[in-house]
Amino acid sequence: MTRIVNFIEKTISLASGMRNADINFDTMTASAVVMVSDVMRNGRPLVGVAFDSIGRYGHGALLQERFIPRLLNAPPSTYANPHGPGICPHRLWSVVMANEKAGGHGERAGAVGLIDAAAWDLQAKIEDKPLWALLNEKFPGASTPNQTAIYASGGHYRPNEGLDGPKQEISRYCQRGFTRFKIKAGGLPIEQDLVRIEMAIDAAGGAENLSLDFNAGLTEANAHDWLNAVKGRQLAWVEEPVDPLNYQLLAELCHAYPGAISTGENLFSFADTRNLLRYGGMRPNKDLLNMDISLSYGLVEYGRILDLLAACGWSRSACIPHAGHLLSAHAAAGLGLGGHETAPDHPIFGQFPEGSSIVDGQLRLGDIPGTGLEHTAGLKSIFSSILS
Amino acid sequence: MTRIVNFIEKTISLASGMRNADINFDTMTASAVVMVSDVMRNGRPLVGVAFDSIGRYGHGALLQERFIPRLLNAPPSTYANPHGPGICPHRLWSVVMANEKAGGHGERAGAVGLIDAAAWDLQAKIEDKPLWALLNEKFPGASTPNQTAIYASGGHYRPNEGLDGPKQEISRYCQRGFTRFKIKAGGLPIEQDLVRIEMAIDAAGGAENLSLDFNAGLTEANAHDWLNAVKGRQLAWVEEPVDPLNYQLLAELCHAYPGAISTGENLFSFADTRNLLRYGGMRPNKDLLNMDISLSYGLVEYGRILDLLAACGWSRSACIPHAGHLLSAHAAAGLGLGGHETAPDHPIFGQFPEGSSIVDGQLRLGDIPGTGLEHTAGLKSIFSSILS
Repeated sequence: MTRIVNFIEKTISLASGMRNADINFDTMTASAVVMVSDVMRNGRPLVGVAFDSIGRYGHGALLQERFIPRLLNAPPSTYANPHGPGICPHRLWSVVMANEKAGGHGERAGAVGLIDAAAWDLQAKIEDKPLWALLNEKFPGASTPNQTAIYASGGHYRPNEGLDGPKQEISRYCQRGFTRFKIKAGGLPIEQDLVRIEMAIDAAGGAENLSLDFNAGLTEANAHDWLNAVKGRQLAWVEEPVDPLNYQLLAELCHAYPGAISTGENLFSFADTRNLLRYGGMRPNKDLLNMDISLSYGLVEYGRILDLLAACGWSRSACIPHAGHLLSAHAAAGLGLGGHETAPDHPIFGQFPEGSSIVDGQLRLGDIPGTGLEHTAGLKSIFSSILS
Repeated sequence: MTRIVNFIEKTISLASGMRNADINFDTMTASAVVMVSDVMRNGRPLVGVAFDSIGRYGHGALLQERFIPRLLNAPPSTYANPHGPGICPHRLWSVVMANEKAGGHGERAGAVGLIDAAAWDLQAKIEDKPLWALLNEKFPGASTPNQTAIYASGGHYRPNEGLDGPKQEISRYCQRGFTRFKIKAGGLPIEQDLVRIEMAIDAAGGAENLSLDFNAGLTEANAHDWLNAVKGRQLAWVEEPVDPLNYQLLAELCHAYPGAISTGENLFSFADTRNLLRYGGMRPNKDLLNMDISLSYGLVEYGRILDLLAACGWSRSACIPHAGHLLSAHAAAGLGLGGHETAPDHPIFGQFPEGSSIVDGQLRLGDIPGTGLEHTAGLKSIFSSILS
């Protein structure tokens, strides 16, 4: 019976001079975690690894205080895989969520998401297959389970950068195989920001290749004005226009805006997603859903969300998970979602392990067992130092 | 200009053999915090203190990792009271919430709630008045600002206790000046639990003196059955029948159940409360709201919630905050809310400082400056050890 013998967290700084319409990232952090099993492979213990999403800070403190002790104190029989070797991520999820009250889906959803992701990575390695393949077995439905559409996300507001910053960024991404792009919006007065956006549309080769991310920065006072200002442009989508919990305002926007609206990255649970579907006015064959798998209790909860979506008439292709971490890439491919976001220049989130490729806007994942996180340029040394 | 020179957190075990319909409390913890200022009084620095709510674990890790550094790094000018000596809890709140994204109102709401509570305690001491008096000045509206209705909360499921446990507990509380009571429900099959409830009604002197707390334990499968089973009894209210985010099911229950329904203790923000009011089917002149002030970003956010309630036609008397911590008692009295919950036998939460009294179901608070937390039997030694 596989036993989890240790669980290590290391908090990594993601400090940068970036800003979106909501926050700046000067003190941003993220957690790298390693789940150590007692399974030996090539003379070393097999480990599951995971790396945080971005935007809600690391989860080390909460992991140390509450979830790691709960995991390490659990008898291996409580999370054993009943169908074969290794562990069952679903049973392990229930172990770490014991005695957690309903509601309040905030930081703990991100802490549990890291444990969940490490568990899936470990189990994929135990079964000696890439995560996308394991996910395709567990949640069948993808037509090309090692492949997904990918778009380049960027266009933050940076100090000392002109209005043509996003345009230049997009031009660089074009050289690297990307065909669709997203930039931040709403951080400047409308007229000024529109100049920036028009230049970006130009670089993207048309509005249908560009999306705008408002990072929940609009309010009752200006959301309608903003969407009216861009609605003639036939953008790919506009993302998170308003506060993630303001379903009423979102529903008004969905009613008024003819194009696609994308949201959900700051809703961290099945229960919150259900409310978005019930009250947000989202249109199943038009709008997009960005729940962040890592920040929302991981793949076990995401499976529940996919069942909910199916029951409500939504296709998996409406899902483009937030943040562009490698976990999402495997999920987008292996679960047959609508695509994957990536920040190509980011030293951590923009990196893929060897064997992956981005060609004509399609990401193809390689065959390294697990997620391959510890084989990416940005995380290799971080995980090596944890494991040494 | 008052400077916060230190902020100390100590995690306290609240372990007990209790269980409600949702979780058990064997590993429950809570945070005691001390905000140390540079204001000297009687040769010692003046401090603000706060103690956590119960049910969502302590908040020490998150405080240490994110919020205490942010607070201690802030220049005193950013949280100075613009109208007099001391600090401004509203400005201080904005300081600690800098660069926090929208949504995801979970653990951080409890961590910030502790900082907020300590800030109010400190400022009340700087102004040399009890917290209820300061709150009555800042948010006027209470008719008897040092007094509030109080009820005794208990009736948990305990191992080795018979169905008459709650009845015996209520009888004890009657001796101590209580006239209204709440017990846990939904943790046994209906028929069996009803026996327990009938005995409790008897001890309470009538169903109108008793409420039932389901702790979010009911679902689509049994919530209607349960409320039908008790709807003939004219109970004071039934509390949190279902998942805090399942507004749709709650609205069905509000539509079908003729008596009062009370909920909100697991919604931790203005934005979530707004959704409860928009979608939960709650009836302004009948139902009750239990948002937990400490777990919901503290009194600053609660002020916003009170404004929202007023705008939506709700009276403050519909608010009975969750958990029965002393912060809530001051808020219930000083803000003129509907009443206060207390667990009379609890060694920490059931205690009031000298000068307080409970007579005929009314709590009268004394005149000790601040909340008086460090003068209660349960917390005196804990705060002494932190401060020594």
